[in-house]
Amino acid sequence: MSQDAGIDSGLLSPVRAGTPAEAAVADQAWVQAMLDAESALTRAQARTGTVPGPIARTITETARQGLPDVRALALASRETANPVVALISQFRAAVAARDEAAAAYVHRGSTSQDIFDTAAMLVATRALRIVHADLLLTAGTLAGLARTHRDTAMPGRTLALQAVPTTFGLKAAGWRHLVLEAADRVQALLDPPLPVSLGGAAGTLAGYLEYARLEGGDPGGEYARVLVEAFAEETGLRPALLPWHALRVPIADLASALAFTAGALGKIAVDVLSLARTEVGEVSEPGRPGRGASSAMPHKRNPVLATLIRSAALQVPALAGALTQCLVSEDERSGGVWHAEWSLLRECLRLTGGAAHTAAELVQGLRVHESRMAANLDLTAAQITSERLGVVLAPVLGPSEARSLLTRACNEADEAGGGRTLPEVLAEVPEIAARFSVQELEGLCRPDQYTGLAGALVDEALKSR
Amino acid sequence: MSQDAGIDSGLLSPVRAGTPAEAAVADQAWVQAMLDAESALTRAQARTGTVPGPIARTITETARQGLPDVRALALASRETANPVVALISQFRAAVAARDEAAAAYVHRGSTSQDIFDTAAMLVATRALRIVHADLLLTAGTLAGLARTHRDTAMPGRTLALQAVPTTFGLKAAGWRHLVLEAADRVQALLDPPLPVSLGGAAGTLAGYLEYARLEGGDPGGEYARVLVEAFAEETGLRPALLPWHALRVPIADLASALAFTAGALGKIAVDVLSLARTEVGEVSEPGRPGRGASSAMPHKRNPVLATLIRSAALQVPALAGALTQCLVSEDERSGGVWHAEWSLLRECLRLTGGAAHTAAELVQGLRVHESRMAANLDLTAAQITSERLGVVLAPVLGPSEARSLLTRACNEADEAGGGRTLPEVLAEVPEIAARFSVQELEGLCRPDQYTGLAGALVDEALKSR
Amino acid sequence: MSQDAGIDSGLLSPVRAGTPAEAAVADQAWVQAMLDAESALTRAQARTGTVPGPIARTITETARQGLPDVRALALASRETANPVVALISQFRAAVAARDEAAAAYVHRGSTSQDIFDTAAMLVATRALRIVHADLLLTAGTLAGLARTHRDTAMPGRTLALQAVPTTFGLKAAGWRHLVLEAADRVQALLDPPLPVSLGGAAGTLAGYLEYARLEGGDPGGEYARVLVEAFAEETGLRPALLPWHALRVPIADLASALAFTAGALGKIAVDVLSLARTEVGEVSEPGRPGRGASSAMPHKRNPVLATLIRSAALQVPALAGALTQCLVSEDERSGGVWHAEWSLLRECLRLTGGAAHTAAELVQGLRVHESRMAANLDLTAAQITSERLGVVLAPVLGPSEARSLLTRACNEADEAGGGRTLPEVLAEVPEIAARFSVQELEGLCRPDQYTGLAGALVDEALKSR
Amino acid sequence: MSQDAGIDSGLLSPVRAGTPAEAAVADQAWVQAMLDAESALTRAQARTGTVPGPIARTITETARQGLPDVRALALASRETANPVVALISQFRAAVAARDEAAAAYVHRGSTSQDIFDTAAMLVATRALRIVHADLLLTAGTLAGLARTHRDTAMPGRTLALQAVPTTFGLKAAGWRHLVLEAADRVQALLDPPLPVSLGGAAGTLAGYLEYARLEGGDPGGEYARVLVEAFAEETGLRPALLPWHALRVPIADLASALAFTAGALGKIAVDVLSLARTEVGEVSEPGRPGRGASSAMPHKRNPVLATLIRSAALQVPALAGALTQCLVSEDERSGGVWHAEWSLLRECLRLTGGAAHTAAELVQGLRVHESRMAANLDLTAAQITSERLGVVLAPVLGPSEARSLLTRACNEADEAGGGRTLPEVLAEVPEIAARFSVQELEGLCRPDQYTGLAGALVDEALKSR
Repeated sequence: MSQDAGIDSGLLSPVRAGTPAEAAVADQAWVQAMLDAESALTRAQARTGTVPGPIARTITETARQGLPDVRALALASRETANPVVALISQFRAAVAARDEAAAAYVHRGSTSQDIFDTAAMLVATRALRIVHADLLLTAGTLAGLARTHRDTAMPGRTLALQAVPTTFGLKAAGWRHLVLEAADRVQALLDPPLPVSLGGAAGTLAGYLEYARLEGGDPGGEYARVLVEAFAEETGLRPALLPWHALRVPIADLASALAFTAGALGKIAVDVLSLARTEVGEVSEPGRPGRGASSAMPHKRNPVLATLIRSAALQVPALAGALTQCLVSEDERSGGVWHAEWSLLRECLRLTGGAAHTAAELVQGLRVHESRMAANLDLTAAQITSERLGVVLAPVLGPSEARSLLTRACNEADEAGGGRTLPEVLAEVPEIAARFSVQELEGLCRPDQYTGLAGALVDEALKSR
Repeated sequence: MSQDAGIDSGLLSPVRAGTPAEAAVADQAWVQAMLDAESALTRAQARTGTVPGPIARTITETARQGLPDVRALALASRETANPVVALISQFRAAVAARDEAAAAYVHRGSTSQDIFDTAAMLVATRALRIVHADLLLTAGTLAGLARTHRDTAMPGRTLALQAVPTTFGLKAAGWRHLVLEAADRVQALLDPPLPVSLGGAAGTLAGYLEYARLEGGDPGGEYARVLVEAFAEETGLRPALLPWHALRVPIADLASALAFTAGALGKIAVDVLSLARTEVGEVSEPGRPGRGASSAMPHKRNPVLATLIRSAALQVPALAGALTQCLVSEDERSGGVWHAEWSLLRECLRLTGGAAHTAAELVQGLRVHESRMAANLDLTAAQITSERLGVVLAPVLGPSEARSLLTRACNEADEAGGGRTLPEVLAEVPEIAARFSVQELEGLCRPDQYTGLAGALVDEALKSR
Repeated sequence: MSQDAGIDSGLLSPVRAGTPAEAAVADQAWVQAMLDAESALTRAQARTGTVPGPIARTITETARQGLPDVRALALASRETANPVVALISQFRAAVAARDEAAAAYVHRGSTSQDIFDTAAMLVATRALRIVHADLLLTAGTLAGLARTHRDTAMPGRTLALQAVPTTFGLKAAGWRHLVLEAADRVQALLDPPLPVSLGGAAGTLAGYLEYARLEGGDPGGEYARVLVEAFAEETGLRPALLPWHALRVPIADLASALAFTAGALGKIAVDVLSLARTEVGEVSEPGRPGRGASSAMPHKRNPVLATLIRSAALQVPALAGALTQCLVSEDERSGGVWHAEWSLLRECLRLTGGAAHTAAELVQGLRVHESRMAANLDLTAAQITSERLGVVLAPVLGPSEARSLLTRACNEADEAGGGRTLPEVLAEVPEIAARFSVQELEGLCRPDQYTGLAGALVDEALKSR
Repeated sequence: MSQDAGIDSGLLSPVRAGTPAEAAVADQAWVQAMLDAESALTRAQARTGTVPGPIARTITETARQGLPDVRALALASRETANPVVALISQFRAAVAARDEAAAAYVHRGSTSQDIFDTAAMLVATRALRIVHADLLLTAGTLAGLARTHRDTAMPGRTLALQAVPTTFGLKAAGWRHLVLEAADRVQALLDPPLPVSLGGAAGTLAGYLEYARLEGGDPGGEYARVLVEAFAEETGLRPALLPWHALRVPIADLASALAFTAGALGKIAVDVLSLARTEVGEVSEPGRPGRGASSAMPHKRNPVLATLIRSAALQVPALAGALTQCLVSEDERSGGVWHAEWSLLRECLRLTGGAAHTAAELVQGLRVHESRMAANLDLTAAQITSERLGVVLAPVLGPSEARSLLTRACNEADEAGGGRTLPEVLAEVPEIAARFSVQELEGLCRPDQYTGLAGALVDEALKSR
């Protein structure tokens, strides 16, 4: 390994280190995708009769061998502000080694951006497929959790405080909803596929046309459609309506879907972190030896998966924002805006891919501690049902009086330090005692009996798709 | 006007000052939307039989009157971290003034977030409709420009330099493509509509259910669907599958569509600025007395519309990134993340709305200077056709020799200071002179004859939709 | 109030509604600052002998009257992409009404950006002073909290779990450290002051020089320094070394200091939210009637101040990022980049100002619940001291054996459901029992005896400044 | 090379590929810095008498050997959410291979974050030194350009249009000013140095203290200061006043300085791109064979250095914004926020480092085309001096009449298509002709005579530092 290699091997980004998405977007994968784009272009030209078939085959076979020295391409890219120029030069030499005549057909009529952007779409497609599969896996697991815990009551929390009860099933159904929405947004970029990039030097396809003419005959205006469709078929991508060197719709769409996905998974992560707190203890992460270990505190089993997912969710929306800004790209190709996209896009892909992979593992092994949920529901001595009591007592005392009584009763229950519960306090109010037995008050104050329509919502959500 | 009023009346944001989108998202509009949400909720409850019909009518009529003192609500919102609590209190008093008994039915079973988020969706819907109309208007105008200038040759520019010729029609078609894509993304948020927010205190609908029971009878699990559908019908919004207090899909979707739109319009703006440069002069902005005037330089007519659009495009993607990050929202309602969304969302809506309004005006009056385009095509003494010459000369000289000859010829043409053109230099090369007459060389070097398939691309784009 | 007024009166931004910083940066304040800049410029020119003294006095007196219709300026700003052109026109008319001859001396030799940017610096200065005072107030209160709770033990938490004990005093000292660091960064922008902007149409001061010549005599190269120094003295700002129309150092510095401040306060906010959780209960926010009330849940007293602060902290760094990007500003004045700064800057100022104001109130009334801290320290049955036990047992059992024993013991203590504490489990291990009495083990396991050097760190921090 | 290696070898980020800053922040460098931190910690403990000196030497020597398999650490980091746990395990084994007894002294009393953050500061310091040197080199070159071109007139441009003349010297002086300001901000992070991180498990230093006690004697409260100072001396970093695991001042300061630097360099880049446009042609980039070559257009020499710098400037402020947001970090160590910083920080360091390196090269070879500047000054037929004429004609015609005459004259000059110059048009106005000879008018209209105080400003700027 050369001294320079391994500049970034994932050390600072555990959320994606070793995940399939990381491999799918590595430099090596990008180089191969550029070679794939070059050979697909030649085959497309062969289909339109402007490159001899055997030559397209030679070029394709050469492309399959890859190029060994990615680092050399990286270094050379500083001379031309992109890696394609050096890649073509190396690739042309490799083709020439097989067939001198074929070399002249490499990259014919083309421009660096056609190759780079098409390669980016191939790379993104492969990464998105991985993300999509992980999202579906995650959603499937969450469906099971939602079903299992349809009626597992737990505290609903707003602005950090216990508000009214909810169920873990509803929480899991909500997570699943987010994950499915993310999967939809990813899928929308896979079907129809992302577009090929084909425009030539400044988006007029002039170079391609000129070479076609050189091979005899004028293909006419049709050629724009014909060539791009052939290129699309050869790559598995979609024809683009217009060259998009400076119309960065696909990039902005990728940014949007990836930011959404990372953010959606981040919601699950912060919920898990919130519920895993020592004082809450309602869920814990899947354990296995060494997982979540602290270097000095034997008792800790850190929620590392949620931690990693959150680390991605804090980065991707900001990166995606910068990527979206690249829509503001002057002329037929910007000097700098296009170039700013590359790292941002890869980072969004691999962070999101890593987060999706991690989320699948997180939810599959998530441990749900029902007893802690029940215990936490009892923490407020029934104040968590104060909304219900407000509803029930309003007709008895008048809404305003009911509210101020409840506020006083809650304060008193707080100050009593847990010694007295809300029903006990209420039972001492003559108007209430006149209407409700202690037993009835206790029933109204049972948190697990005040989960509203949580169960029905879970059923609807699971039924819907 | 009170001392406090007019804290922000648009002074620092000319891109949206006085535009319809600004008015649609002003504080006053937001207050009215919250009242609309409150009254729609009551009507929905009336439809499900849990609020008496006449009371719903009283509440609706009161809501239509609005609330006068927005600033008082703003100030009160610091006490509860949202403006709804104070709004309900004022609104309840206004209802009580009409009908004492009706007051108790205001905001029944509800929670601040249901009202605020539903209002946000109403406000966003109104703003999006304005944006959409302006985008369609802009696209229509651009179609005309693309058609008119289908064959108007101009320099295509990449990395700041003239590359190969293109046409202004293709540029306009590209702009139109972006604008239509933006319109699609906006339209996708209007049809189906954005969702109502209905969840109650922690997303279980428990308060709504409890009140329904108070009115007699247990509506059962159906009630979740029934109530949300009634609310949706009363507001014109869409039912949400699940309460989304902490599942911020609609917010992220708005962020994405608005960032895309602002970015797309920003592309047009930077192109206009680039083409309007004194030295380029290929387009200028619509003039009218006073427009674009400088305070000290009588000769300037600043491209102010493009300037304003660009100012929005530089802000919205960053704001939208922050908004998307609000997906990472813990618990059943976050303390702080929800609250961070409000200003960001409004700012995205009104900046994008202002940009769309401004873009419509910009393109409608855009002046295209064909003579400057032609003159600029001639600036490089035909070097702008060097790609074509490379194609044509390769079979004559071999690709590598052709390239190095052309490089030398271009350098020489540069150094000659415009005294010698490319065809002149080439004609001195014996191998070339042997194959091409001077006339043929001059033909190959005519920039307006090397626009590739630009015309066909324009036709395809205009035909496609 | 006109229909258009009050477009934004703070409704969507409770963190700053009604705070002093909001007023300091309102449109009205900005208009006054622009008038102040105009009159200061005239006085500066008078000092250099190029404007008659009485005329400077007339202009200054007129500027003090302000301009009534901010909204009209906002609307007019669309014509010229900034509000200065219309402001000058109105202002000139107001001056002319007092003294016809004086009107010609308004804005002499100047350019919109000189006035706008100088005004921005005046506005920012006033807002920063408010922020600074609130930060010092907050830091002072936090010093008291740190001192009072120097030895109040509480759980230290990492990755959401209890790790080892810490003290509330150390936490408060850490908050204070952040606040003082923020105050330093704000102070660095006040002393030396922010710079005036003085460059004329394209930064050469040519217009100022030309007018000076018109008044007789050639002031020579000195004039650059002389005029900018006079302008600085008249505004209370600092002379700038070079015109900075396109060298946006002050803007980037403001962005940096404000993002830091908002982020630092956000740290306090998320800590308060974390500690205020129902299950944790270690702190609560200052109460007063109505503060933190929920519309439906009488028992809740929401941590609204922390919520508001956090809402600002989630916005400002993203806005500041966009503002910093405005350094990338082409030519002598950018078409769009300059214009993108204005709203972003104001929003950063008022959100940060609101957050600082809110933080001062938050910490002043913060209630610290020592008994809950003690109770939470006992939650893990002494596992929170596992690090200490690892240290102490390592020489007895060997480090690796000590660690695995502790891991097993912690697991067992967990599973036992609290029935058995860590010292109990350990006392059963013969090697340990042979070395430590149960009492000694219990001493080692007392969380409040394992706060390390927390007290000393608090002392150092308080002593340091 | 393993299949996984070279995940990122710079292919997508030519701005930093192969630059010294890239190497300084590569994974390998980070691993070495963590080992350096571990060994420095042991030496610091030896200095305080709590680790035997020979053992510290053994550990130090082992650390110098490095660890070979960075990728394995990256993969292992997923288990614990950071790479330190696995690193310690490997490192301890390496130490044990030399001296079994020494292994127990590795990472004594420490926590992952102490090591990681200290390593991050070491890495950042090395990268900042490289950045600083490149900034000084750049500033030096720019000083030369400013001096040489002190009086080289060129058009000043605002909102894309020629405004009034300026000089290239003033532009270069402005660039230099930005670069020096950036250097100041970088230098402020080097002197005093960045801080060590030393806090132990939750920032109380309890583990360090416990081990110190184990070695005999209670070091007392002093130990906090003593140990951190020893650690600082051993690393060359600065002692931190308080443990900063959750007080992320150094990270925010790095983000700010790097965003500033990248943005400042971005300004130079967009100016170069603007001036290098084919139609403007006032500067071009340093050429050398192959540099800036296009794959298909032999005539192009793309401004690749400016392109690369701009690509960094578009990314760093957004990344830095996300990094600054990491100030909002809950508890004694956040689960996720800390982890989000790492990649963002490295990316900011290497993009900025690459941009600084590239900028030094850009300005050193920048070619300034004075003849094009002169030609461009003549493009508007003297309208570029309209401000001056306004000043001079105002006393003759009255300011308002002067302005409208000039506006008309400029329009006429425009329409005449360059046939008539501004002085010609003006000479036809009787009032003007009565006052000024044609020669005088032509003198007033000479752009190179209207550069205001540009020369004096350059002198001041160069003199000031």
